[in-house]
Amino acid sequence: MAGDIVSQLDPIFKPRSVAVVGASDDREKWGHATFEKAHSTGFRGPVYPVNREQETVQGFRAYPSIKDVPDQVDLAVIVVPARFVPGVMRDCVEAGVRGAVVISAGFAETGPEGRRLQQEIVQIARDGGIRFVGPNCMGIFSSVSKINLAFGGMPPHGPIAFVSQSGTLGGYLFQAALTKGYGFSKFISSGNQADLNVADYLEYLGQDPDTGGIVLYLEGVPEGRRFLEVAKRVTREKPVIVYKGGRTSVGMKATMSHTGSLAGVDAIFEAVCRQAGILRGYEAMHPFDMVEAIASQPLPAGPRVAIIINGGGHTVTMGDACALAGLQVPDIDPETQADLRKYLWPHAPDPVNPIDTAGDWRPMTISLLADRVASLDYIDGLIVQPPWSSPGRYKNAELAKAAINAAEIIANIPGKYGKPVITISSRDGVSGMIGDILSGGKIPGYSTPEECARAMYALVKYAEIRRRSQIEPRLTASMSGGNGKEENR
Amino acid sequence: MAGDIVSQLDPIFKPRSVAVVGASDDREKWGHATFEKAHSTGFRGPVYPVNREQETVQGFRAYPSIKDVPDQVDLAVIVVPARFVPGVMRDCVEAGVRGAVVISAGFAETGPEGRRLQQEIVQIARDGGIRFVGPNCMGIFSSVSKINLAFGGMPPHGPIAFVSQSGTLGGYLFQAALTKGYGFSKFISSGNQADLNVADYLEYLGQDPDTGGIVLYLEGVPEGRRFLEVAKRVTREKPVIVYKGGRTSVGMKATMSHTGSLAGVDAIFEAVCRQAGILRGYEAMHPFDMVEAIASQPLPAGPRVAIIINGGGHTVTMGDACALAGLQVPDIDPETQADLRKYLWPHAPDPVNPIDTAGDWRPMTISLLADRVASLDYIDGLIVQPPWSSPGRYKNAELAKAAINAAEIIANIPGKYGKPVITISSRDGVSGMIGDILSGGKIPGYSTPEECARAMYALVKYAEIRRRSQIEPRLTASMSGGNGKEENR
Repeated sequence: MAGDIVSQLDPIFKPRSVAVVGASDDREKWGHATFEKAHSTGFRGPVYPVNREQETVQGFRAYPSIKDVPDQVDLAVIVVPARFVPGVMRDCVEAGVRGAVVISAGFAETGPEGRRLQQEIVQIARDGGIRFVGPNCMGIFSSVSKINLAFGGMPPHGPIAFVSQSGTLGGYLFQAALTKGYGFSKFISSGNQADLNVADYLEYLGQDPDTGGIVLYLEGVPEGRRFLEVAKRVTREKPVIVYKGGRTSVGMKATMSHTGSLAGVDAIFEAVCRQAGILRGYEAMHPFDMVEAIASQPLPAGPRVAIIINGGGHTVTMGDACALAGLQVPDIDPETQADLRKYLWPHAPDPVNPIDTAGDWRPMTISLLADRVASLDYIDGLIVQPPWSSPGRYKNAELAKAAINAAEIIANIPGKYGKPVITISSRDGVSGMIGDILSGGKIPGYSTPEECARAMYALVKYAEIRRRSQIEPRLTASMSGGNGKEENR
Repeated sequence: MAGDIVSQLDPIFKPRSVAVVGASDDREKWGHATFEKAHSTGFRGPVYPVNREQETVQGFRAYPSIKDVPDQVDLAVIVVPARFVPGVMRDCVEAGVRGAVVISAGFAETGPEGRRLQQEIVQIARDGGIRFVGPNCMGIFSSVSKINLAFGGMPPHGPIAFVSQSGTLGGYLFQAALTKGYGFSKFISSGNQADLNVADYLEYLGQDPDTGGIVLYLEGVPEGRRFLEVAKRVTREKPVIVYKGGRTSVGMKATMSHTGSLAGVDAIFEAVCRQAGILRGYEAMHPFDMVEAIASQPLPAGPRVAIIINGGGHTVTMGDACALAGLQVPDIDPETQADLRKYLWPHAPDPVNPIDTAGDWRPMTISLLADRVASLDYIDGLIVQPPWSSPGRYKNAELAKAAINAAEIIANIPGKYGKPVITISSRDGVSGMIGDILSGGKIPGYSTPEECARAMYALVKYAEIRRRSQIEPRLTASMSGGNGKEENR
């Protein structure tokens, strides 16, 4: 295949023109919804319907074959019955198409005949220089191109790229993550991975400037060795977090029945992840919570966090959650405590860490404490409670202005000190003006102590992975070239 | 103290009249917000402001002392500075008040002088026949009386009673649970627990017809032995689920600094819970997720679940989550599989369990499968995916009607078969008409496989607790009166 992965996959994720083969006016057909999504989500180039029987589809002029489209088509979206796909793929080759998304089902997942058909379209595509997603997939979403073949509509842009081996579950998790307020750069329903597989997507997304972190839903990995090699490289630049299906015998049985392939043994997968620097999320929303923090925050130098929060129960539960996640919550030194005292109400407990502002409603208190604590060399990251979402909730104009200042101070900490900040608030993320200030500063917010602690721990783990990957080449060099003295120390 | 716990606490949670001592027009004072909450949330009886200096408060006629109120006051809410509370409590005794909520802080949490003051109000209340919540608390919410001294507004009614040892964290978790769609019967911020403590609340809530399940946030337990005895009795009737603060050395340090008291050692607390039949939630939202299911569903006879869900990835991850939670997912027998086949599309995999409807958009498919599977004697509970939230999302009127029928079938399963049903949908709970049908049938909904599995496991564990509590008295009797033959079998 000519060209690197970027030039091969850009026609799919950044096409200048799109054709939907199988576009239809019949609402019962996938081709109806797919074509509607293709032309209605803001994509700036032309979208051509291809339909053998109709002259127009949804009001657009239709063409009997992709070869008849009077334009260079970059991306072909294929939604015709499986038996017609080889012919369509041949037409695509003739028309000079460079990328395809094959939504049609009825291939390897159905048995020997489907496997043969799948092999046939792979061969045609390979010979003709086409790379394709699928078959048997739900499509893709690419924020930069405003293409959403998977769900329709235009979800908010964000740093997360999500590749899912399962279409329906992938769509479901995507939706659940949107509900939590996360934004996406890409979504890829990888389907049967006949041509492109997760290793290719990882390689491409690793170089995608719009993607800050990658979430994978995997059951098995087709090219294990290559996946490991690619992941090793990508995790030096961006976090990769996996939610793995088929961890138990029950899940494996289900994997077998829906893909006809075995899920990998979980202990082996865990070892691969460790080697590749891949993080794992063990519940469905955890990878999204984790990647959101890593994609937005500076990496901490270590696991030592300061907690600044309003109320005793908060300090207790956040302290517990951090300790249970493997973080450290070091005591603030006495001199700094004396400094911090001046920001606190007299009845507040000593600001040891976790620091309790004891019901203090003055919006600046937590921010002033946070800014001071962030400067301490034995603190690597902060978990703080932001001001109320709306300045209007404060009793007067002075307090409302103070809340805005307070939010700005929090938003500036990562840039000022190079340390990550995570916030807790009872809704997912803070809404309103304060929310805008915090999200302008890319400060992530979570609603439970455990989510906050997990996100901070993910930052710490990923920082370790990055440091390890920087040291590893040197270590390897010194070990092969060394004289063994190191071992005697 | 005269009377049982119900007659003692009803004046607090079901008062006929309320006075707020310290009610104020000054927005800087707690007495402003507290009185506003007291008269603006729909409470049907009179709410009297008591203020020594003003003739009216917030437009209501005010009285210089509670003794001057020309009416029998059931509940006194006290928000005056700590040093005035003993005098107010004496006035309450003279006025024949029976219950109080002491919001004022400045008692045992502040040191020896505060402890003395606290002891004094306890003595006055005991001598005068008053039971009280607090001091140093955020107030209470009682759905049946439409009183919400804690947060203002009237949260949706539901089966959950929530008692929190921390006011701010309690309010926070209450808000987060409301955001998830849960409803409440009661909220109690227990404060310093000078008079009433968590054992009293447990005893009262155990007999409260509005409460289906009890969530506790605890750091320590004041009367450990009595708490254990009460909990043993209550858990025979209703689930009690604890989120415990101070599980780690970091959390314990924080507990110490905000309450001046030690959190119990977690391993000991775990043993107490096991003995008392108390369940634990290890993350902040887990107890609410769990109690919602137990309070609404019939208890399962065992841990064997059927999973019926639309998409392969869903079957895999839900299967994993169930297996990891300790549930069983037994194979459906071949005869029943043949029966189920007729509801499925031909390309769907064999309905073994988890059952995958393989992209079937016909709303009745899952419901027909669920109703059939619920009748199997080796299935104890079901996890299913409901139809889309809005019948309007279906392509035509027939399908929309089918979606409504499908939701009704799911909603009827618990009543028809005496087995619990749990649903998964990407938003918390299903909205719209389908949501109304499901919540009419009290079917709980969660957004992740892990939440569903945790809720089902909580049902299984609580069913075991109930069975154990029914067997225990018999066992004890036969062991003390028996001749030892049982042991030889």
